[in-house]
Amino acid sequence: MSELANPHRTRTVTWQDPLLTAKRGMTMSGLEFLQAMVRGELPPPPIMALLGFTILDLADVEPGRVVFTAEPAEYHYNPIGMVHGGLACTLCDSAMGCAIHSTLPAGVGYTTLEVKVNFLRPLTQATGVIRCEGKVIQVGRTVGAAEARITDARGKLYAHATTTCLILAPTNTASE
Amino acid sequence: MSELANPHRTRTVTWQDPLLTAKRGMTMSGLEFLQAMVRGELPPPPIMALLGFTILDLADVEPGRVVFTAEPAEYHYNPIGMVHGGLACTLCDSAMGCAIHSTLPAGVGYTTLEVKVNFLRPLTQATGVIRCEGKVIQVGRTVGAAEARITDARGKLYAHATTTCLILAPTNTASE
Amino acid sequence: MSELANPHRTRTVTWQDPLLTAKRGMTMSGLEFLQAMVRGELPPPPIMALLGFTILDLADVEPGRVVFTAEPAEYHYNPIGMVHGGLACTLCDSAMGCAIHSTLPAGVGYTTLEVKVNFLRPLTQATGVIRCEGKVIQVGRTVGAAEARITDARGKLYAHATTTCLILAPTNTASE
Amino acid sequence: MSELANPHRTRTVTWQDPLLTAKRGMTMSGLEFLQAMVRGELPPPPIMALLGFTILDLADVEPGRVVFTAEPAEYHYNPIGMVHGGLACTLCDSAMGCAIHSTLPAGVGYTTLEVKVNFLRPLTQATGVIRCEGKVIQVGRTVGAAEARITDARGKLYAHATTTCLILAPTNTASE
Repeated sequence: MSELANPHRTRTVTWQDPLLTAKRGMTMSGLEFLQAMVRGELPPPPIMALLGFTILDLADVEPGRVVFTAEPAEYHYNPIGMVHGGLACTLCDSAMGCAIHSTLPAGVGYTTLEVKVNFLRPLTQATGVIRCEGKVIQVGRTVGAAEARITDARGKLYAHATTTCLILAPTNTASE
Repeated sequence: MSELANPHRTRTVTWQDPLLTAKRGMTMSGLEFLQAMVRGELPPPPIMALLGFTILDLADVEPGRVVFTAEPAEYHYNPIGMVHGGLACTLCDSAMGCAIHSTLPAGVGYTTLEVKVNFLRPLTQATGVIRCEGKVIQVGRTVGAAEARITDARGKLYAHATTTCLILAPTNTASE
Repeated sequence: MSELANPHRTRTVTWQDPLLTAKRGMTMSGLEFLQAMVRGELPPPPIMALLGFTILDLADVEPGRVVFTAEPAEYHYNPIGMVHGGLACTLCDSAMGCAIHSTLPAGVGYTTLEVKVNFLRPLTQATGVIRCEGKVIQVGRTVGAAEARITDARGKLYAHATTTCLILAPTNTASE
Repeated sequence: MSELANPHRTRTVTWQDPLLTAKRGMTMSGLEFLQAMVRGELPPPPIMALLGFTILDLADVEPGRVVFTAEPAEYHYNPIGMVHGGLACTLCDSAMGCAIHSTLPAGVGYTTLEVKVNFLRPLTQATGVIRCEGKVIQVGRTVGAAEARITDARGKLYAHATTTCLILAPTNTASE
């Protein structure tokens, strides 16, 4: 395939040090952390800049529920002519993890043990803006479970996901 | 956080029209398609450029087995101080889908119905180069299943995944 | 361990030929099939007798939603002192499969490709009667997805599950 | 359907108190516990009697690997004419949980957080004896992952599964 027939496109991504943000996050509850990010008081994590998704406004962050917004584009495509499933996975993983995070007090962290995503319809450039709503199924002292759904502007469903997270209880190590 | 305290970093991504590639792919077997990509005869899909993964050489593409290579970096980070799970999901989804694709003749496509990923260890900038090996569990006329593992240079395991794909038998519509 | 210290218990299970039922099922819509089972016009399948679960009444069968009821008992126990996860899996698989079946017309079948179950709380003899509600997420021409939840009499959640089913379009083979 | 046309079959299941067994298990390593069960020194758990599966001999229990054997029968059937998916789920859940248990020292328990099963071929009465091999993927201090495969006498694959377990570190409560 000649370069003329298939010209190059470029996109430049900008982000800030995620470890500074993560460190500040340890002093806040999950809800405060997410709200600070929506208000622009904390920079978004690099992955959000990379894949082009965001939390639009404060109404999208509640205890146990977080909604991300994205717009599928050519730069998300896989080799078989549609958006790569990795976009839906990343959105669902983010929305579910943040939904669980939004219920945790300051000093309590979490880590995702597994995520399962069902792809119900292909995402393409023609899909338009999508929303990914993550909701807690249950959060206990040790384990949390959540689910997520990706829908378009008309409410059509594109993906459904579930996750298991480990809740990381506060450690006794002195904080810096 | 002041801009001085947390300066911006940038990365520019380049890709080519994925639909031209996908169209050419329909005339090749899955194995030929993947081999043409490794040889540089077809451009990599945008998602590979975006997340920075690749198939290193022809030995990484066999019928029923495909290996991707990546290097976790700051631009993959989530808000809690490590690489976002979406990188492992995308690598595993790619390696499993391509492993299934590598067994299909020309004109037979596939679509991924679901993927489940277990995160066994966090990926960070310190992890170094990782490999994601996808292997077919079984491919039938209608359905295929595959698994994937992500390991570092010393063989340490970071993620394990499984998938279900729908095999799309050749249609009777006239080709262009 | 002496036989005196740990005496034997027994339970006798009764069922009828499931293939006769399955054959009659092919002439009915999924909803009619499930309703006939609730009314006692068709015998329950052997697995329901074996594990002791049932659909209590007609209100538990609607298009896209089916509820099973069971009572965890000693005969369901695993070797580590609680009900085996297989009970929750079987209930969820049944409720989700039947929820999908309840949306299908006569002559259209389905087969389950995969099921994933999150165990949120242990089931024991002390749990009492549980309900497992299966609900369709989406049913298309080729693929269906559903989810299920197991709750006790007070609404406490014990398990959450999702599934992917293949929809089997009517074949052209002559019926017997 | 008349009773004559579809006569009743019965099967009587026998088991012993599983809590006595579980209590004795806490004093043994997982491997010793499973070996004692194979040798008949501990009674099998009720679920094994109920669904008719067993560990055939000591070679089927190794650190990180446990194999169960079963024979699909009419009493396992679902309403659509084949063995219910619950049998494969229960076998895989057992084999994976026991594979993880087989790596744990005395006093350390585990609980299954989630299981995902891919059904690759239907099981029927004609399948004959099947084996379900569970193997550890990884066991850490807090979390374990395992996989399982169900095959028939000729090695044909019927199901594939993965699981996530929580490892329950020894508590400080005084033992009885």
